[in-house]
Amino acid sequence: MTSQRIMNLLKEMTLEEKAAQLMQLVAAFYDDGDEGQITGPMEAMGISEAEVNRAGSVLGVSEAEKIIKIQQAHLAKDRLGIPLLFMADIVHGFKTIFPIPLAMGCSWDTELAESSAAVAAKEAAVSGLHVTFAPMADLVRDPRWGRVMESTGEDPYLNALFARAMVRGFQGSDLTRDTSHVAACVKHFAAYGLAEGGRDYNTVDLSERSLREYYLPAYKAALDEGCEMVMTSFNTVDSIPASGNRKLMRDLLRGEWGFDGVLISDWAAIREMIAHGAAEDDREAALKAITAGVDIEMMTPTYVHHLPQLVAEGLVDEALVDEAVIRILELKEKLGLFDNPLRGADPEAEREVIYCDAHRQVAQELATKSCVLLKNEGVLPLHREQKVAVVGPFAQNGDILGSWSWAGSRETALQLGASMVKLAGDNVVLAEGNGIMSMSKEQLQQADAAVQEADVIVLALGEASEMSGEASSRSNIQLPGAQLQLIQAMKRHGKPLAVVLFNGRPLDLHGVIDQVDAVLEAWFPGSEGGAAIADLLYGVANPSGKLTMSFPYAVGQIPVYYNHYNTGRPKPAEDTEEKYVSQYLDIPNAPLLPFGYGLSYTTFDYSALELSSEVMTPEQSLKVTVEVRNTGELRGVETVQLYVRDIAGEVVRPMKELKDFHKVDLAPGETAKVVFELGEDKLRYYHSDLSFASDAGSFEVFVGPNSRDTLQARFRLIK
Amino acid sequence: MTSQRIMNLLKEMTLEEKAAQLMQLVAAFYDDGDEGQITGPMEAMGISEAEVNRAGSVLGVSEAEKIIKIQQAHLAKDRLGIPLLFMADIVHGFKTIFPIPLAMGCSWDTELAESSAAVAAKEAAVSGLHVTFAPMADLVRDPRWGRVMESTGEDPYLNALFARAMVRGFQGSDLTRDTSHVAACVKHFAAYGLAEGGRDYNTVDLSERSLREYYLPAYKAALDEGCEMVMTSFNTVDSIPASGNRKLMRDLLRGEWGFDGVLISDWAAIREMIAHGAAEDDREAALKAITAGVDIEMMTPTYVHHLPQLVAEGLVDEALVDEAVIRILELKEKLGLFDNPLRGADPEAEREVIYCDAHRQVAQELATKSCVLLKNEGVLPLHREQKVAVVGPFAQNGDILGSWSWAGSRETALQLGASMVKLAGDNVVLAEGNGIMSMSKEQLQQADAAVQEADVIVLALGEASEMSGEASSRSNIQLPGAQLQLIQAMKRHGKPLAVVLFNGRPLDLHGVIDQVDAVLEAWFPGSEGGAAIADLLYGVANPSGKLTMSFPYAVGQIPVYYNHYNTGRPKPAEDTEEKYVSQYLDIPNAPLLPFGYGLSYTTFDYSALELSSEVMTPEQSLKVTVEVRNTGELRGVETVQLYVRDIAGEVVRPMKELKDFHKVDLAPGETAKVVFELGEDKLRYYHSDLSFASDAGSFEVFVGPNSRDTLQARFRLIK
Repeated sequence: MTSQRIMNLLKEMTLEEKAAQLMQLVAAFYDDGDEGQITGPMEAMGISEAEVNRAGSVLGVSEAEKIIKIQQAHLAKDRLGIPLLFMADIVHGFKTIFPIPLAMGCSWDTELAESSAAVAAKEAAVSGLHVTFAPMADLVRDPRWGRVMESTGEDPYLNALFARAMVRGFQGSDLTRDTSHVAACVKHFAAYGLAEGGRDYNTVDLSERSLREYYLPAYKAALDEGCEMVMTSFNTVDSIPASGNRKLMRDLLRGEWGFDGVLISDWAAIREMIAHGAAEDDREAALKAITAGVDIEMMTPTYVHHLPQLVAEGLVDEALVDEAVIRILELKEKLGLFDNPLRGADPEAEREVIYCDAHRQVAQELATKSCVLLKNEGVLPLHREQKVAVVGPFAQNGDILGSWSWAGSRETALQLGASMVKLAGDNVVLAEGNGIMSMSKEQLQQADAAVQEADVIVLALGEASEMSGEASSRSNIQLPGAQLQLIQAMKRHGKPLAVVLFNGRPLDLHGVIDQVDAVLEAWFPGSEGGAAIADLLYGVANPSGKLTMSFPYAVGQIPVYYNHYNTGRPKPAEDTEEKYVSQYLDIPNAPLLPFGYGLSYTTFDYSALELSSEVMTPEQSLKVTVEVRNTGELRGVETVQLYVRDIAGEVVRPMKELKDFHKVDLAPGETAKVVFELGEDKLRYYHSDLSFASDAGSFEVFVGPNSRDTLQARFRLIK
Repeated sequence: MTSQRIMNLLKEMTLEEKAAQLMQLVAAFYDDGDEGQITGPMEAMGISEAEVNRAGSVLGVSEAEKIIKIQQAHLAKDRLGIPLLFMADIVHGFKTIFPIPLAMGCSWDTELAESSAAVAAKEAAVSGLHVTFAPMADLVRDPRWGRVMESTGEDPYLNALFARAMVRGFQGSDLTRDTSHVAACVKHFAAYGLAEGGRDYNTVDLSERSLREYYLPAYKAALDEGCEMVMTSFNTVDSIPASGNRKLMRDLLRGEWGFDGVLISDWAAIREMIAHGAAEDDREAALKAITAGVDIEMMTPTYVHHLPQLVAEGLVDEALVDEAVIRILELKEKLGLFDNPLRGADPEAEREVIYCDAHRQVAQELATKSCVLLKNEGVLPLHREQKVAVVGPFAQNGDILGSWSWAGSRETALQLGASMVKLAGDNVVLAEGNGIMSMSKEQLQQADAAVQEADVIVLALGEASEMSGEASSRSNIQLPGAQLQLIQAMKRHGKPLAVVLFNGRPLDLHGVIDQVDAVLEAWFPGSEGGAAIADLLYGVANPSGKLTMSFPYAVGQIPVYYNHYNTGRPKPAEDTEEKYVSQYLDIPNAPLLPFGYGLSYTTFDYSALELSSEVMTPEQSLKVTVEVRNTGELRGVETVQLYVRDIAGEVVRPMKELKDFHKVDLAPGETAKVVFELGEDKLRYYHSDLSFASDAGSFEVFVGPNSRDTLQARFRLIK
C-alpha cells in the first residue's frame, strides 16, 4: 500500500521530473558539487543541469562527508525535496575486504557469509551508501568467464543459500530503523553466467526449463529473503537483451514472482540494446525497457530524453512511468530517507567502524574457511622450526583482494610472506621468483638463492586480480607459462614443494598439482588473506574449504559440472575399453577436482549410511544417517554432503543434486552421527510443462565428503 | 491414401506381428541365414526365432547375393509374405568413397554433392539396399565433437541446400520404378550437433527459438525435398531423449510439419532412455517411444517385448501401433518391394557398377573441389621439375576415407605419395617421418634423409580417421604433438614447406599455419583423394574450396561461428584498448580462419557493390550486383558469397547470415558481374512468439570471398 506521502509527491511531479527520477548518475557528476566540473559528464551524457538536479539516484560515490554534501546540495535544488539514493558495488566487503564470492562459497558457511555482508553493509552505511549491487547470484559452469570470481559456483541450491545469507547480512531486519544496513540488489537477472564461450557479455541461450531449474533459483531465493532490488543482466535471454525482455521482467519477475521492488539496468544496458540489435535508437531502447519494467536506468539518458515524448505520443502509458517512480520512492521511504536523508552517513563513525579490528577478524575467519586444500603429501602443515622459502609473484604482493574491491587497499592487505614471517620469523625467506606473466634471469637467480638453505619451498602463484572479474575472460585457464616454468625450476632443487594459489577462477592445474607435493587454493582471500593462509600453512588452523565449482581437466572439457545428466551412453569407467560411449578420446570425462572437494590435515572416514525407511511419502520424510569419524591426528571440520538422484523422471534428472550438508567439528578419533532430514519437497523439479513437483519412483541418496566419493542408498517415493 | 493391399495386410496381422514389423535386426541375425548362428544374437537381444522371422527390417547387411538369400528365406518364413527392408549407413559413398560431408560442404557445389549421392545410391541399390541413413543434417559449432566430419558445417542455409541435394541424389525422382536409387533418412532429429562440451551423445540444451532458427531448417529442407525417413538423435532435447520426446516428434515433426514417413530410432536409442533416466525400464521406454511416434526400433527389443502387452492393458492405443506399421508398409510399397522384393539387388550389375571408373571420376572431382587452400606464400603450385619430398604419416597412407566408409577400401584408395609420383615420377621422394601420434628416431632420420635433395617439402599430416566420427570427440583439437614436432624438425632444413592436412574437424592450426609456407586442407578426401590432391598441388587443378566451419583460434574459444550476435558491448577492433567489451584477455574474438574462407592460386578482386534500390518491399526484391575480377595469372573458380544483417530485430539478429552464393569461373584478367536477387522472403526469421516473418527496418548486405572480408551496403525494408 503506497503511502499518502508518495502519492502526494507523485501528483506534484511533472513528467520530466518523473523521468529524471528514473535516471541514475555516476560520481563524476558530483565531484565536490562544483558546477564547473559537472559540465564534462553532462556533455558526455547529453543532459542538462536541470535534469541533473532532478536525478533520482547516484552510483559509485562514497565517503560520508562527500555524500552528505551532495545530498544537502541536491535537496536544496530539487523542487520537491526528494532525496537521492546512493548506490555502489559492495560485493565482498567495503574497506574490509572479504574473500571473493567464489572463495566465500567454498566455506559452505552461510552464517559467516551473512556476517561478512553485515560488516560490509555497516562500513558502506556509515560512508553514506544506501544500496549495494550485490549479491551476485549467477550460476556458472564456465571458468573462462571472468566474473566467475563473483559467483558462489555451479550449484543452484548452494547459490540460493548464499544469496539468502548475503541479503540477510546486507539488509538486516529493518532498513528503516537500522541505518547500519543497506538495501541489497540481486544480480544479474538472468543467467548472465552462461555467457557463450565464457566471453563476458556474450550471448546466452538455454531452454526455459533449464533457466528455471538451474539459473533462476538463487535470484528467487534472494527475493524470498526480501531483497529490495534486482539488476538486469547484460546478456540476451531467448535472443532479447534482459533490459528489454518483457517476458523475463514483466511476465516472470513482476507477474509470476510478484516482485514489486526496484529493477535497475546494469551499466548502460538500456542503450546497449542498440548494439545488441534489439533497438534502432535510444527512443526504441527506452520504450522497450520501460515496457519490460525496468525502473532505473544506469548511466545512459534514454529514459530522461525520451519517456516524456513517448508518453505524450501515447506509446507509453504514463502509468508505467508512475509505477517505476513509486517503486523508487517507496525504496527511499523504506530506507527512511524522506525523514532522514543523510541516513547512516557519519564521518566520525566512519573513522571508527571502517576496517576496525572486529571487522578484520571476520574477514580473516572467512578467509581461513574459504581456502581449499587440494593436495597434501606430507608437506603441510609446516613447522615453525623449518626453514621455508616463500617464492613467487604472490610472496610479497597485496594484490590479493580480487576484483570488486575498489574501496579496499592493496597496500594494507596482509601479504602472505610477511604473515609467515610474523609466525616463524627468520626461518622464512622471501623471493619474488617471477612476475605474473614473465620470469627474468635475475628473478630466477634470486629464487634459486632463496631456496638454497630452505627445508621446504612455498610457491605463491596465481593470476593478477585483473585476470578475473568483469570483462576479464581467459581462453587459457592454466597458470601463466612463466609460473609453470618457475615450478619446474624450483623442482630441480629436490625439496618439498607446496603451492599457494591466488586466483579468481577454477584453473586447469596440470603442471601444478601433478608437479608439487601440496596445493592450497587461497583464491583472492581479501585484506586479511596473508594471515589466514599463514595460519593454515603452519597448522594454526586446519583447512576445511570445499570447492563449489569443478576444476576442469582441460579447457577443452568445458562445461564440466557435477550435476550433469547421465546421457544414454554413459562411460562405465574412465578406463573402459568401450568405444561407443560418451567420452573424449584424449581426456577423462571427470573434472580434475570435483564439486565439493577439499582436504584437511586430518582424515575422515564415512560409514554406516542408513535410511530410516526404504519408502518416502509426501507426509513422511526420511532420516538419512551417516557416521563420520576423524581418523587422523588433528582436530578438523568436515562438511558432510548429501546428494540425491531421481532414477527416472518425466524429464531427465541430474546424476547428483546437492540437497543438504552438515558441518561437523571432530577431535582425533571422534565419531559424529550425522542426521539429515530428507523430505518430498526436496525431490521436486520442473517438469516439461514447467510444473514443479516430485514423481513417485526410485531415488538414490548419496552422502560423502564431496560429490564424487560417496556412500549410497536407495529409496522409493510413494504418492 | 493407404492402399487396399496394405489395409488388407494390416487386418491380417496379429498384434505380435505388428510389433515385430517395427523391429529392426542387425546383420548378425542373417549370417548365411544359418539358424545355428542366429542363436547368439537372439540370446543377446532376448528374442525368439518366431520374432526374428516376423521382423520388419534389417540393418547393415550388404552384397546382392546375401540380401537376395535373406529376403527369399524371410519370405518363405513370414506368414504374410511381407518383405524385409534393408538399410545401412551409406553416408559419403558406398564402395566409391567421396570426401566426408564436412569436406563436401566446402565444395559449395550442391549439384556435385547430388551426383555423389546418386552414385552412392546406385552402388548401394545394386547391392540390395533400400534405405540409407543419410543425409546427416546436424548443424555443428563445436569441432571437438567427432561427428562434425559428418556434417556440412555451421550454417543453416548451406546445410539445408546440401541436405536437399543429398536427398535428391539418393532418392531420385521415382523410388518405385527406378531401382537404382534408395530412400533417404535424414538424421539426427534433433540438434544432435549441439552435444555439450563437444562430447558425443551428451546433453543438448537450447531455446526453442534457437532450435527453430538454426538447428531445424536443414532437417526440414530434407523433408521438403521428399525425404522418406527421419532418424531420432541420441541426445535429450529440453531434457527429454529425442526418441521419447513427444513434443518434438508427435507435435512438431508429425503434427506441425506433417511428416508421415517412417521415423526410426538411432541404434538402441529407445532402450537408452533408461540410462538417460527418462524411463524406469524397457516397458516404459517402449511406451514413451511409441507415444512420441517412433515407428522402427533399431537394435533393442522393447517394442517387440512390450507393445502387445501395453496395448492389451490399454496403455497404448492399437491405432498408434497400426500407424507405425502402415508407415513401414507404405515405404515398402513405395520401394516396390511387394511386387519386386529383391528390387535392385543384382550380383552381376554389382560387379560392373561398383567402384567403376565413372563413379571414381565423380569422387575425384568432388575431392578436388572440397580441398581448401588455407595459406600459400609462393610455394604452390609445385612444378614437376622440382624435387619434392613428401613426408609424414599420410605420405603413403590409405586411411583417407574418413569415418562412415565401412564398405570402402583403404587398400585401393589413391594415396597422396603414389599419386604425386604418378605426376612427377622420380622427382618425388617419399618418407614416413612419423606416425600419427609418435615419431621415432629412425622415422626422423628417414625424413631428414628424404629431404636432403629436395627443393620443396610437402608434409602430409593429420588425424587418423578414428579420431573423428562417432564417439570420437577430442578435447584438444591441435594436430598430435609428434606431428607438430615433425614440422619443427623439417623447418630446420630451411626449405619451402607445404602441409597437406587429412582430418575430420576444424583444427587449431597454431604450430602449423604460422610455421609453414602453404597449407592445403584436404580433409578425408575419399577413395580418389590422392589423385585429387596431387592435381591441386601440381596446379593441374586450382583450389576452390571454402570452409563451412570456422577454424577456432584455440579450443578455449569454442563455440566460435560466423553468424553470432553482436552483444551489447562488441569489441570495436581486435587491437582495442577498451576494457569493458566482450573479449578474451589472451586471444582474439575472431576465429583463426572464418566461415567461407579459402584461397586459390589466382586472386580475385571485389568491387562495385551496388543495390538496385535503397528500399525493398515484400513485392519488390533487390538486385545486388558486384564485380569480381581475376587479378592473378591462372584460371580459377570463386564462390561469391552474399550475407545479410538485420540491424534491429524484434529479437537480436546475427551479425551476418549467408543468404546466397554464386560460383564464377574466370580466366586471368576476366571480370564477372555477379547478380544476386534478394527478396523479402530471405529476411524472415523466428520472432519471440515463434512466428516467422520479416520486420521493416534497416538491413546491411555484404558480399565477399568469405564471411570476414566483405563489401557492404545498406537498404531498408518497407512494409
